[in-house]
Amino acid sequence: MVSKNQIKTITGLQQKKYRKQHKLFFAEGIKVVQELLNSNFELHHLYATTANLFAGLPNHKVSIITDDELKKISALTTPQSCLALFTMPDEKPLTTTGLIVALDDVRDPGNLGTIIRLCDWFGVDQLVCSAECVDVYNPKVVQATMGSLTRVNVVYTNLKEYLATAETPVFGTFMDGQNIYKQELPQNGIIVLGNEANGISAEIEALSTNRIAIPRFGNLQQTESLNVATAAAIILSEFRRNF
Amino acid sequence: MVSKNQIKTITGLQQKKYRKQHKLFFAEGIKVVQELLNSNFELHHLYATTANLFAGLPNHKVSIITDDELKKISALTTPQSCLALFTMPDEKPLTTTGLIVALDDVRDPGNLGTIIRLCDWFGVDQLVCSAECVDVYNPKVVQATMGSLTRVNVVYTNLKEYLATAETPVFGTFMDGQNIYKQELPQNGIIVLGNEANGISAEIEALSTNRIAIPRFGNLQQTESLNVATAAAIILSEFRRNF
Repeated sequence: MVSKNQIKTITGLQQKKYRKQHKLFFAEGIKVVQELLNSNFELHHLYATTANLFAGLPNHKVSIITDDELKKISALTTPQSCLALFTMPDEKPLTTTGLIVALDDVRDPGNLGTIIRLCDWFGVDQLVCSAECVDVYNPKVVQATMGSLTRVNVVYTNLKEYLATAETPVFGTFMDGQNIYKQELPQNGIIVLGNEANGISAEIEALSTNRIAIPRFGNLQQTESLNVATAAAIILSEFRRNF
Repeated sequence: MVSKNQIKTITGLQQKKYRKQHKLFFAEGIKVVQELLNSNFELHHLYATTANLFAGLPNHKVSIITDDELKKISALTTPQSCLALFTMPDEKPLTTTGLIVALDDVRDPGNLGTIIRLCDWFGVDQLVCSAECVDVYNPKVVQATMGSLTRVNVVYTNLKEYLATAETPVFGTFMDGQNIYKQELPQNGIIVLGNEANGISAEIEALSTNRIAIPRFGNLQQTESLNVATAAAIILSEFRRNF
């Protein structure tokens, strides 16, 4: 059973201001919910259409609901048997060593989710986002992470100030940068990726100590840019391929 | 001016069966439309909200329409000033040399569009799709290609038969494959990528002469898979990085 008030609260959580107000976010589908349950995220409440999906959880934290009720609270076109509310944790402080990814104004939820999944795959546990980036607790981001959110620390900050005080090299990707395939890449550094339409902003560009580029193959007339998530995949693969 | 019949025809083109029946597909937005106009694709009709966007086109192929009319024919939530209908070309025959990408049952339009863009970037001009793959003229695929569709030959075929008669090595990606970073990769070959949820099917796996894997970094508990488009980015980058 889901009350009208609960429906209003849960659907409200699709908006950042209500997530902030309630300090809650939600995830859907067994895979993502299970990963979050197995992590440090604190379950607030679970709504599921079958009782035996999640045995062992305290009774007062679980409601068995109908498919119709799930449809009313879900953000998905095709709801996936469960929806769980979790407490939004406090941001953990950033570490300053190791390989770090920083995003300058990345707006697309799918791109952010995919980049979090890539960070997880390539052992990058710190992701720094400029304040303009899409919110990590946006339901579309949470779904796209496929549970990787539990293993990557995502921190929102003033990116300019953060990079200005960085003690490791800052790698910005630019069309006229140095061929990424022809250089030694360190294990400590910050990889900056820019906005989908405009790339890295001028003020962040000025803070890039190393200008890198993914070369296009051949000299044909080709596409002028890569999607930010596929660029992230190629760059992270290059940084990690020799280790 | 757009007639009711035209609206019905154009919105119908969002479905494969009507695209096949009319032998037409459409693209939206100046960038994609411009790229298609500059290619071998044949313009059927252009609908634009401003007259001077596309000077030089024959008058009878252009209609100036209002924002409201564009909204009625557009497949986008936020229509983008123009929509153009193009004739679906006949499939060109496949070449059998060079680097070729083959997709086994890739269903997501965004993934197919991103992979076409990657093929274009990395100079792969042949993309072979199994019959189960999403249609390349699906409007979401066309938009995601960002114009790369004009430079990549996409052919639908019986993938099993195609691979069974292939004369170059067939590279399938599997969790237990050989580390892709530690082998010499040829310039002739077929890279096979599998379905989003199930990977490469058993019958296609049996036809893979080379089993490759993208290793995860470290030994931590990490995400168990990469999105098919990000896997494609990393694999294509590896095949092309030394050339």
